[in-house]
Amino acid sequence: ADAAAMQAARARQAQLTKPAGALGDLEDLGVRLAGVFGSERPHPRGVAVLVAAGDHGVAADGVSAYPAEVTPAMVANFLADTPAGPGGAAVNALARTVGAQVYVMDAGVNADLPDHPALIRAARQRGTRNLRQEAAMTRDDAEALVLAGAALARRAAEEGADLLIPGEMGIGNTTPAAAMTARLLNLDAAQVTGRGTGVDDARLAHKVTVIREALARTDTTNPLDVLAEFGGFEMAAMLGMMLQAAALRRAVVLDGFVEGSAALVGVALAPALRDFLFPAGECAERGHAAQLSHLGLKPMFRLGLRLGEGTGGVLAAPILLSAAAALREMQTFEEAGIPG
Amino acid sequence: ADAAAMQAARARQAQLTKPAGALGDLEDLGVRLAGVFGSERPHPRGVAVLVAAGDHGVAADGVSAYPAEVTPAMVANFLADTPAGPGGAAVNALARTVGAQVYVMDAGVNADLPDHPALIRAARQRGTRNLRQEAAMTRDDAEALVLAGAALARRAAEEGADLLIPGEMGIGNTTPAAAMTARLLNLDAAQVTGRGTGVDDARLAHKVTVIREALARTDTTNPLDVLAEFGGFEMAAMLGMMLQAAALRRAVVLDGFVEGSAALVGVALAPALRDFLFPAGECAERGHAAQLSHLGLKPMFRLGLRLGEGTGGVLAAPILLSAAAALREMQTFEEAGIPG
Repeated sequence: ADAAAMQAARARQAQLTKPAGALGDLEDLGVRLAGVFGSERPHPRGVAVLVAAGDHGVAADGVSAYPAEVTPAMVANFLADTPAGPGGAAVNALARTVGAQVYVMDAGVNADLPDHPALIRAARQRGTRNLRQEAAMTRDDAEALVLAGAALARRAAEEGADLLIPGEMGIGNTTPAAAMTARLLNLDAAQVTGRGTGVDDARLAHKVTVIREALARTDTTNPLDVLAEFGGFEMAAMLGMMLQAAALRRAVVLDGFVEGSAALVGVALAPALRDFLFPAGECAERGHAAQLSHLGLKPMFRLGLRLGEGTGGVLAAPILLSAAAALREMQTFEEAGIPG
Repeated sequence: ADAAAMQAARARQAQLTKPAGALGDLEDLGVRLAGVFGSERPHPRGVAVLVAAGDHGVAADGVSAYPAEVTPAMVANFLADTPAGPGGAAVNALARTVGAQVYVMDAGVNADLPDHPALIRAARQRGTRNLRQEAAMTRDDAEALVLAGAALARRAAEEGADLLIPGEMGIGNTTPAAAMTARLLNLDAAQVTGRGTGVDDARLAHKVTVIREALARTDTTNPLDVLAEFGGFEMAAMLGMMLQAAALRRAVVLDGFVEGSAALVGVALAPALRDFLFPAGECAERGHAAQLSHLGLKPMFRLGLRLGEGTGGVLAAPILLSAAAALREMQTFEEAGIPG
């Protein structure tokens, strides 16, 4: 991030027509956005949510409350024609409300997805292998998906996005996310494993066991190996989106726990990525707080979301745009002729 | 609120393409909006922030970190021509970002405000009297300002607002807000008195003493008398806005502590008002949490705002619009052909 722009933004913040600090966390967010966009008066405009979908071999172990068939069905839902416009999922409804563009990528869904002009096809496999038993994907496939995610982020930026929101869909994907988080943060599986879409106590205990078995297979801590061993194709794609967005000096709005697992790989590879990440809400999934604590970043709200799809990121976008607008558009005490 | 619409909304919520409860607090917000707008698929559109400004006799006692001259200067700032558009204050910048209309009312500023086509003149007095020594205003003036606030809310609704955000500006106004809150919630002044724009420990202790003296003058608990004895003209106007908005079946986004003091009068007069109130963030001002607890309502975020002006309400508006959009626009599992 641009340290000079941040310093100038901080100085400007102190001159704006408000008591010092009265805009609370918006003030820090504004300064961080100044760093991302290289201006003391940052002006992010377009918002895009990039939803990557993938399936997970480990779903066969019964780690989710939903069958894997829901993944392709939800991809169809993201693309459906509805009376309200394209897409009938939560992320579509929220994106329409805030004026965000939605991109949908097949990162590795286990189905023969019907053709759709808006579907971005990047799948190399139909779902990962079962991470409990073997590496979820090859390094080669992982890297291909990282590049596909990066390409989509470039496209979104070219089409006007200044705030990029990686989002995901994949039945079972809180299991790989928890495995990645446990390994990258050196925590026990139980500390970072939650109920996902809503499993009961027995299935939660089973999920922890599955993750422990996976972690016992290999002791690698190499970030890309952790992704390939324990991750998912949608995490690989989101990692590419994040790294590319940062390279293009765009802000990344970080949604939930699965997105967070990709971000952990990202900051392990490139610590400077952190400066471009803006966590949306604290999601209800156990382990998300540990991710945010490791990143040293504070979420904007706690609405108890645990849906994924990038929904929390979409809700956060107007807050970030507002933080930038306050810093950019407010008058100073001097301009307004106010006794400061 | 419309109980049948809420029940239908709850049933619909359970059929939408997401795990039950996965949208967290958005789900309850959607159901409450269904109650306000009388439809299981609520469709609020326009957003308006109605900023009432007033001065306070008690400011002469040194309860604020800022001189009273800041009130008229900030009214001018709300109306200023700036390169970004009309208004150079935080609320203007945030309102532009989310597409909210800003209305500015002189509810009782202690200055000869210059003419401006957008300034709504409703002042009967140039500031209240000192509430420490005597009633801040007459019942007559209080009621006149309630009606003026109601008239502005009607106008905003006629001009398209479905979400109304009462906002305020008035140097010293956390002192009357704390006095009103203490009396209406039967709490000691120290429990509800905070630092406002940022007073130090000594001035905070002084502020508590001033409020205790005021409370000792009269033991009235009649809501409108509490407003007249301890309140401010901007609180009276905001009370009128809230009651009128509810009567017109519009949602009221409740910003901070000063707005909350008006809401306490409102629910004391008309308990059903509660169903139309949507607290934005938990503001940093001590006493706000007690107000929300009394209202039995949960705020949407905690960003540490303590500015007023309706800024928190503006930030909350996209969250409410999103909650309604999810309920209204998402497909059901059946519509999407997804195994639920």
